[in-house]
Amino acid sequence: MPSPKVVLSLLSVAAAAVLSLSVSAQFGANGQPAVAGPITAKYQADASKILTAASSDNDAYTALTYLCDHIGNRNSGTPQLNTAVQWGADLMRKAGLENVMVQPAMVPHWVRGHEEAQIVSPGLNGTPRTLHMLGLGMSVGTPGQGITAPVVFVHTFDELDALPPDSIKGKIVVYNPGWHGYGVGSLYRTTGASRAAAKGAVAMLVRSATGLVEQTPHTGTLRYDEKQPKIPAAAISPEDALLIERLAKEGTVTVHLQMDAHQEPDVESGNVIGEIRGSEKPDEVVVVGGHIDSWDVGQGAQDDGSGIMAAYGAVKLIHDLHLKPKRTLRLVFWVNEENGGAGGRAYRDLVAKNIDKQVAAIEMDDGAEAPLGIGYTVLARTPGNRRAPTMQQMMRQGPPPFNMDALTPEQQQSFQTMQQIAALLQPIGAGKVFPAGGGSDIGPIVALGVPSLAPITVAEHYFDWHHTEADTLDKVNLDDFRKNIALLAVTTYVLADMDGRLLGTKIPDRE
Amino acid sequence: MPSPKVVLSLLSVAAAAVLSLSVSAQFGANGQPAVAGPITAKYQADASKILTAASSDNDAYTALTYLCDHIGNRNSGTPQLNTAVQWGADLMRKAGLENVMVQPAMVPHWVRGHEEAQIVSPGLNGTPRTLHMLGLGMSVGTPGQGITAPVVFVHTFDELDALPPDSIKGKIVVYNPGWHGYGVGSLYRTTGASRAAAKGAVAMLVRSATGLVEQTPHTGTLRYDEKQPKIPAAAISPEDALLIERLAKEGTVTVHLQMDAHQEPDVESGNVIGEIRGSEKPDEVVVVGGHIDSWDVGQGAQDDGSGIMAAYGAVKLIHDLHLKPKRTLRLVFWVNEENGGAGGRAYRDLVAKNIDKQVAAIEMDDGAEAPLGIGYTVLARTPGNRRAPTMQQMMRQGPPPFNMDALTPEQQQSFQTMQQIAALLQPIGAGKVFPAGGGSDIGPIVALGVPSLAPITVAEHYFDWHHTEADTLDKVNLDDFRKNIALLAVTTYVLADMDGRLLGTKIPDRE
Repeated sequence: MPSPKVVLSLLSVAAAAVLSLSVSAQFGANGQPAVAGPITAKYQADASKILTAASSDNDAYTALTYLCDHIGNRNSGTPQLNTAVQWGADLMRKAGLENVMVQPAMVPHWVRGHEEAQIVSPGLNGTPRTLHMLGLGMSVGTPGQGITAPVVFVHTFDELDALPPDSIKGKIVVYNPGWHGYGVGSLYRTTGASRAAAKGAVAMLVRSATGLVEQTPHTGTLRYDEKQPKIPAAAISPEDALLIERLAKEGTVTVHLQMDAHQEPDVESGNVIGEIRGSEKPDEVVVVGGHIDSWDVGQGAQDDGSGIMAAYGAVKLIHDLHLKPKRTLRLVFWVNEENGGAGGRAYRDLVAKNIDKQVAAIEMDDGAEAPLGIGYTVLARTPGNRRAPTMQQMMRQGPPPFNMDALTPEQQQSFQTMQQIAALLQPIGAGKVFPAGGGSDIGPIVALGVPSLAPITVAEHYFDWHHTEADTLDKVNLDDFRKNIALLAVTTYVLADMDGRLLGTKIPDRE
Repeated sequence: MPSPKVVLSLLSVAAAAVLSLSVSAQFGANGQPAVAGPITAKYQADASKILTAASSDNDAYTALTYLCDHIGNRNSGTPQLNTAVQWGADLMRKAGLENVMVQPAMVPHWVRGHEEAQIVSPGLNGTPRTLHMLGLGMSVGTPGQGITAPVVFVHTFDELDALPPDSIKGKIVVYNPGWHGYGVGSLYRTTGASRAAAKGAVAMLVRSATGLVEQTPHTGTLRYDEKQPKIPAAAISPEDALLIERLAKEGTVTVHLQMDAHQEPDVESGNVIGEIRGSEKPDEVVVVGGHIDSWDVGQGAQDDGSGIMAAYGAVKLIHDLHLKPKRTLRLVFWVNEENGGAGGRAYRDLVAKNIDKQVAAIEMDDGAEAPLGIGYTVLARTPGNRRAPTMQQMMRQGPPPFNMDALTPEQQQSFQTMQQIAALLQPIGAGKVFPAGGGSDIGPIVALGVPSLAPITVAEHYFDWHHTEADTLDKVNLDDFRKNIALLAVTTYVLADMDGRLLGTKIPDRE
């Protein structure tokens, strides 16, 4: 996460708030301050208990440590994922949650296999130059002997589109859009292969979607346009993208790409679900969680071990404090977020017929850096807020400002409810409400109108580690992790217990 | 660079100023402001010309680009190094320098070969865990089948020394001293193997000497104590050191290490030397340069491509501006800095019999980040400045403050001369003088009393890239690089032309 699915929704939905879903971290400047009110007063005592307990919680970090060090990364289709699923269910049972179950879902089984890439010409001192690469998830492989072809280097899709079609045919397209946030970076990663294939390219390489330039390739999924030939695609380090750019200015650059990537038959896996049943309205549900699968590199510590374990910590903490919300609080470790979204769809199918009973959905999938507040997606209805910026605008000036006045009175009131809840989080520096927040696992129910929330953090380093070998436990700072537990616990508890409900916004999901 | 040789001098020389040589970047707080004076006034016009010309210089960056992209890394003993040496001599000739020569020096030829390491137990899902490793330069290899042994994890030498000797025999010692600057980090890297071998260890792994935690191993030389068995040694990523630490708390950790590293016969290489002959005192020399060799990873862009190319840019710029200093300005690309120091010693042997004619030596080998000023080593003579801090003190509180009052009147005057020169660099933000500065290539002549200088930069990222695959051209910011050219050009030109001379300090060099 953040999911390319959500990013891609940019292309189909012209609404700035949808954009904000995918790049919520970039909306820091839009954070609205907390405003204390009756809800704040009512829950002050319980919130204080939660904050105190979270500040010394070790259970969730201990569980995260086990997940990272003894299960490790857990790509869809692997035995490790299902080990994690069973372990997650056990964890929920041992924590005393009710109705613990694994909701079955079939997930894809993409296998990376051996892979490598070199610049074969110009060589260096007579030998090829090894590229620092990671094949993109869901990519097809190359033929057995690999693909060797000249490179067409471009920064942007505009540059690609401006080239004569014949100049791309049979070539390997290399994109370096630079770093303008994950929304732009992941767009090139997810759609770049098919856009190149449409012009006759035989393979695609893309600069890793990161701001940290440290020879680290970042994987992530691609998404083929079924109308185009499927060509193999890989991420390369920012350094290698820059090297190819420099060499391509001097003359022809020829690259050899070898990838054994392939799909194996789908595998049964599942969402892990557990509950604290509501004391008065048990059929109304506040759902909180993250995704249990990860990419096949590193430990999946921040993406999204920290999300599921912070959510687990929050629900366990409410349980241990004997707080009994009126509505049901449901913890979900969704499956297959990274390359398919099977878990999110399965959960939607589970709840769709009573969708109005899904009171709110909170997903944590942006890492456990220090939280600044809560993201809550409310769509504006004026043209000013409804128009999505173009990619070019995004690359130039970032996302547009949020206009509170453009909300309906009902939306404003709902936003202010969140501001009252956020006031309870001011002691940990997380008192703001951001007009953005969600996650791709909850995308399918958000599309049906369920209110969509997420923790919003400082997001200083998440994309340094995301989808790499460096996404390891040490990246999760214990103190920041505990603050995220506190945020999730206070927010979900109040939403599950308070008299009113938040207003949802139907944001179309891209399947 | 910075050289472990200089760092090691810590162990043999009890002088804080020597310590400062190796960790000059940490002395930022000790920077003394520029003080304009007669020297400033005399050279104001020439300095302005230099600053203006440097601000748009492209020649040096173009040369650096060629070195990185078309010669690449250049470890001692490799054909690439000698390609770089010949290219460097050609570059000096084409720039119009005089007396261009390659001064022969025999250099070691250490070969990395294939290498790998795994945690074989505890495995992860039944398979070994691959470690992110780079063998240390000059390490011996393992036997053909590798070494498989349990690990002894320690943070510090103190912890190692506190263990019963029998608990280390036959084990692999793993150090994670954390990150307390390069002085401490490189001390563990250079001496850790022999200290472990002295207690019966069969191999050594050390956390990479860096503050950036991104699964990147950083190589660098080790230095065997001839009295101890030579055991193979490698750097591991900070993440892997932390993982071993966590696993070792739970039980026995067994590692397999395979390294084919070995020494081949020494190879003839050499220092590249060129001059602008002095107009009045041609036998008096101000020498400026860096080292032309690099480690065998990345491009050696900052370490020390940027140093030799900034020095080249500075001397070429003085030549192109038709500035004719009274003394000779000598540009040297020293050879074999990283793992032997043969170039520095050869240069000393060249000039030793007229050492008083070596007026000053400036080495740039800390990367071309934005310069803050000039480092100039003057030793204090009071006990307060003479006592070196212990490693424990360094790790707790950093290096000691510099005490200007502890200098002799002559040393103070010489320091103030540098402050007048630094005043010329205030327009580029490089107007401070730091009581620290040198480099390991000039160490042998500094030991004979030659005044020792170096640019001092912000040093924000140098150790993110140092001795890794990530030391590539993109790390060298053109604007910052040009400021370093300006600094070297102004400083060397004034030192070569002014009436007086700086005072040197004999700092013993470790051979």
